[in-house]
Amino acid sequence: MEKKGNIPNATITRLSLYYRRLELLEFDGYRMVSSDKLAWLCQVNPAQVRKDLGYFGEFGVRGVGYDVIDLQVQIKKILAINRDWNLGVVGIGKLGSALLEHENLSVRGFNCVAAFDNSPRKIGNVLTSGLKIRPMQELKQTIRDLEIEIGVITTPASAAQSVANLLLGSHVNAILNFAPTRISVPSCCLVENIDFTVLLDILSYKLHHPSKNQRTRRTDS
Amino acid sequence: MEKKGNIPNATITRLSLYYRRLELLEFDGYRMVSSDKLAWLCQVNPAQVRKDLGYFGEFGVRGVGYDVIDLQVQIKKILAINRDWNLGVVGIGKLGSALLEHENLSVRGFNCVAAFDNSPRKIGNVLTSGLKIRPMQELKQTIRDLEIEIGVITTPASAAQSVANLLLGSHVNAILNFAPTRISVPSCCLVENIDFTVLLDILSYKLHHPSKNQRTRRTDS
Repeated sequence: MEKKGNIPNATITRLSLYYRRLELLEFDGYRMVSSDKLAWLCQVNPAQVRKDLGYFGEFGVRGVGYDVIDLQVQIKKILAINRDWNLGVVGIGKLGSALLEHENLSVRGFNCVAAFDNSPRKIGNVLTSGLKIRPMQELKQTIRDLEIEIGVITTPASAAQSVANLLLGSHVNAILNFAPTRISVPSCCLVENIDFTVLLDILSYKLHHPSKNQRTRRTDS
Repeated sequence: MEKKGNIPNATITRLSLYYRRLELLEFDGYRMVSSDKLAWLCQVNPAQVRKDLGYFGEFGVRGVGYDVIDLQVQIKKILAINRDWNLGVVGIGKLGSALLEHENLSVRGFNCVAAFDNSPRKIGNVLTSGLKIRPMQELKQTIRDLEIEIGVITTPASAAQSVANLLLGSHVNAILNFAPTRISVPSCCLVENIDFTVLLDILSYKLHHPSKNQRTRRTDS
């Protein structure tokens, strides 16, 4: 089904967004959606939608559009989110705790199955989710026992690299990094960094340049 | 200094990332950096760096590169982060509390100056940061008094739209939305949504397609 060649990162991100929008369309009772409408809802252009999906096959019917449920199934397959993934969260401060309770994660098949911290005050505490906070010494064994494939770092910046090293040493090759610092990993490993201050910079820019922003958006009036 | 026309969103995002990388270069003692090196550090191509900066003027010296400190000053000006912004956070659960304590926000000039919640259990409580949680009824007046220009929504999904409406009604035209739902705003308003499950989808895709990922990355060996 899948064409050869590298798929741009931006395409993968957009597939994820199309999927979320298709869920809402299904919830609203839609059976079919045109690429024009899906594009409009996702704020991209229709040619982009067709190109993104075109990397992976022919999903639409010309002149009719996409089947809302079928396209969700196809995107889930492409993104490999038609299965569950087990996550381990390291650093159980407020952010780590918030993540472990986040309503969206398990709904999307991302199961936080273990929580780790190095603070004696926290180790052994049972979280709202029912998980008990484990010491870092149990990381390697727990990752193996619970088949954890994605590590989530919610430590302070200063601890992030050493935690990343421990995860990599335990054969976790994918990391979601919330710590406000970049971490170095070998090329075989995957890291996605979350830095929401970048989004604040974007808001700052747009607040400062309102006319530009207005020109790029639809007007209501 | 600034050229006419719309600046792509992706350019603004990259400027924010260049800025972060320049900070690290300065910290490491670098005075100058070539566009090739800056591009390599940021994992984009050098032509992209030159194009992004080219929207706003001529900052480099041909054959020499960019002055690490001067370029930071220029990008801060462009992004309007050479000034502070006041933020109000609505929804003081674990995520809201984590944000209010986040080491990166005030460092970057984003000052959380007010916290709001509608829970009688929480209203009046004093947070680690020293802020007292205010009732929603005080939102409008507080926004005016403290000159809040950016609203941060950390409520559950079900409350996000009504909080957005309250913020807009109080003339806050920029929203950072952490709630796991999209919110509708008129075209004069700015929203940036944070959905880290999209990043997990990207990790999922790449874990499932390791060869593609390896082809797109530098190898260490």
